Amino acid sequence: MEKRVITISREFGSGGRSIGRLVAEKLGYRFLDQELILEVAKESGLAEEVVAEYEEYATHRSSFLYAIAVSNGGNLSFSNQIQAAQAKVIAAEAERGNCVIVGRGADYVLKDRTDCLHVFIHADTDFRAKRIVEQYGETSKKPIDRLNDKDQRRKVYYKSITMRDWGMSQNYHISLNSGVIGLERCADIIADIVRAAE
Amino acid sequence: MEKRVITISREFGSGGRSIGRLVAEKLGYRFLDQELILEVAKESGLAEEVVAEYEEYATHRSSFLYAIAVSNGGNLSFSNQIQAAQAKVIAAEAERGNCVIVGRGADYVLKDRTDCLHVFIHADTDFRAKRIVEQYGETSKKPIDRLNDKDQRRKVYYKSITMRDWGMSQNYHISLNSGVIGLERCADIIADIVRAAE
Repeated sequence: MEKRVITISREFGSGGRSIGRLVAEKLGYRFLDQELILEVAKESGLAEEVVAEYEEYATHRSSFLYAIAVSNGGNLSFSNQIQAAQAKVIAAEAERGNCVIVGRGADYVLKDRTDCLHVFIHADTDFRAKRIVEQYGETSKKPIDRLNDKDQRRKVYYKSITMRDWGMSQNYHISLNSGVIGLERCADIIADIVRAAE
Repeated sequence: MEKRVITISREFGSGGRSIGRLVAEKLGYRFLDQELILEVAKESGLAEEVVAEYEEYATHRSSFLYAIAVSNGGNLSFSNQIQAAQAKVIAAEAERGNCVIVGRGADYVLKDRTDCLHVFIHADTDFRAKRIVEQYGETSKKPIDRLNDKDQRRKVYYKSITMRDWGMSQNYHISLNSGVIGLERCADIIADIVRAAE
């Protein structure tokens, strides 16, 4: 079965986004990550900044923007409103096909489509700690605490949308340790599977 | 880092054992599955049949052989006795190197070695149900019940040995859905990773 859509879920610092971009280049697919924020904003009627902040801090309920958005909420709760818009945008992009979608529980949203390849990228803590400092610079917080914090958020966020456990092999067609296998090789493996399925 | 040992954990009916055998052939590695029973029996001082039955029904406490073995137990509990022997045999085989080891929580036993590639093979229920009937024939039990029963046992067995959750991506370097990717291609992907790491 041809795979027209690739979803990439990933641990923070594992290079999942970079792998997704490489796969998109190799296959000539559209790469969708930050690009989705604008679409979700349009679909939900919320400001881009609110959507971006929600995606970044999905389970961090104390932010100022979040508080404003909640106070403006209608019948649908704020998070449900964004999640519904996300699901609609992801489904529409999948329908257009030939794309790589990063994060946002896209594997769950598209679980009933047979033309999707669902990927999970993870890596050991040391590899990721080194990588986030290289990629995003130092902060006042220790790298290990930044990893744990972000992983915990993604875990809770994923569970809240999907009711499934984040990182369970069975939710993906392929899961790869990018630190051991290497980013470029991970991208090659994924692209080869897609090419073979054509 | 050269990968001299490959461990394969797998869902029942996913073809993990067949993939392991293919990988061993492709790389010229020793294939260790049933072969380990004799070694574990020797190491533990227990009969081969008792070890085989323990491995098959690790969490099924009502069997006759199990009852006999328990009644003969010393200070070390029966299951601890087998598990300790398994761990010793697996560590010795890994030390010899160039082998594919199936099941038995080998990924956990060898987790601190850097020359191992840890693999998890899974597949959708329909694929596995069809496969177990083809491979092992019909029984009075529905295929789906056989799958659930065996998966549940492996899950409990793995947790009892490792205290980790069976099937979590992070416990393996690569996890593959053999039904979607195909057994032969799964074996190629694994063998290629090992060759590239040499």
